[in-house]
Amino acid sequence: MILIIVKRKTIIVAGGQGVRMHSDVPKQFLPVAGQPILMHTISRFVSWDPDMEIIVVLPEPYFDLWNSHCRRYHFSTPHRLAAGGDTRFHSVQGGLRLIQEPCLVAVHDGVRPLVSHDTLSRVFDGAAEHGNAVPVTTIGQSMRRLDPDGTSHPVKREEYRLIQTPQCFLSDILKKAYSQEYRPLFTDDASVMEAMGERIQLVEGNPENLKITRPADLKYAEALLR
Amino acid sequence: MILIIVKRKTIIVAGGQGVRMHSDVPKQFLPVAGQPILMHTISRFVSWDPDMEIIVVLPEPYFDLWNSHCRRYHFSTPHRLAAGGDTRFHSVQGGLRLIQEPCLVAVHDGVRPLVSHDTLSRVFDGAAEHGNAVPVTTIGQSMRRLDPDGTSHPVKREEYRLIQTPQCFLSDILKKAYSQEYRPLFTDDASVMEAMGERIQLVEGNPENLKITRPADLKYAEALLR
Repeated sequence: MILIIVKRKTIIVAGGQGVRMHSDVPKQFLPVAGQPILMHTISRFVSWDPDMEIIVVLPEPYFDLWNSHCRRYHFSTPHRLAAGGDTRFHSVQGGLRLIQEPCLVAVHDGVRPLVSHDTLSRVFDGAAEHGNAVPVTTIGQSMRRLDPDGTSHPVKREEYRLIQTPQCFLSDILKKAYSQEYRPLFTDDASVMEAMGERIQLVEGNPENLKITRPADLKYAEALLR
Repeated sequence: MILIIVKRKTIIVAGGQGVRMHSDVPKQFLPVAGQPILMHTISRFVSWDPDMEIIVVLPEPYFDLWNSHCRRYHFSTPHRLAAGGDTRFHSVQGGLRLIQEPCLVAVHDGVRPLVSHDTLSRVFDGAAEHGNAVPVTTIGQSMRRLDPDGTSHPVKREEYRLIQTPQCFLSDILKKAYSQEYRPLFTDDASVMEAMGERIQLVEGNPENLKITRPADLKYAEALLR
């Protein structure tokens, strides 16, 4: 048995334009519980592992706005910026370009500030053991599936899982996966890995780790982050 | 064309024992934004239709506690109590026994205080037109389905819907459905109807209309009800 100590890095993808929020401010910059969502998100990772290296992927036109926010909110947690692309896939590629040496790399949505430290432990430990780990939650509500004829039928919710981030990987494998040609079916990192034939490992996420996309989600995050 | 005006009634099922909430108080009685959840839920229906007739199904041992809460919180919205049974199915049966004349009847979870007036319009109007209406929401997160061999694969979330309440029906059909023998696969009213061969109509719910089952849900409700 050989023990290799590798660094943990996290690419936080924050490319959203805030359309669904009915707001001119991109949603990752919306203030919640005293500071922009994205700062909460970054802090979650660094409070779990103070040595965590953070790469934030933003649309390049927002770099100045972000830097001025950091000054205004006295946000001094070290991180690097990478320029986002047209799709999430291209944004992750942008982040990966800043990663050279082998490491464990997590890819996380900037608007998921409620990831728990337990979830972070599970995804990084899972990836160290299996090469990758994807956090999921069970589904608490009854579900139906739509049929092509316009009807629907109940399905067993126990057989389904909701996918969250951070999805965590050995960097070499993830970089190889992201060297593939872009395909529209790439909805998350797991799907990019699977297109290369990798088998995905599921670990337990935390239900509060919501992706903030609607005004009600913002109130939820406000309540939990206060 | 014959226009028939029927009354709207709602059976609010509040039989829960609060196990998941780590609380001795049954969760429908937990205070949120100044009063027990169940009072918020009742008020949603009555503020939409002041003529709405409300039947609350509670475990019989809680009747006194509920009545004392009503006095304490000066909650004077008229409603009748029905005794709950061992399962949701039996509780709904208990509520239906109080309904004689034909009407539109909705069955709603007591711990869903965030149903919107728009959703109420859609379910009652839908049931008036089609005989039944079940509110659903789209799924905002990526989904995977577990395979029997321990792996999993992505599924198209667009093909699935999450089921909410109130589920609304013509009372005669619902009473007939609930005269069936109980079967464990009856997870909601729609499944009871379908076992009788009825076709279920889906209408749009509202995403905030969460079933409050976990402490984080309580914070969410608190934030939205304040």
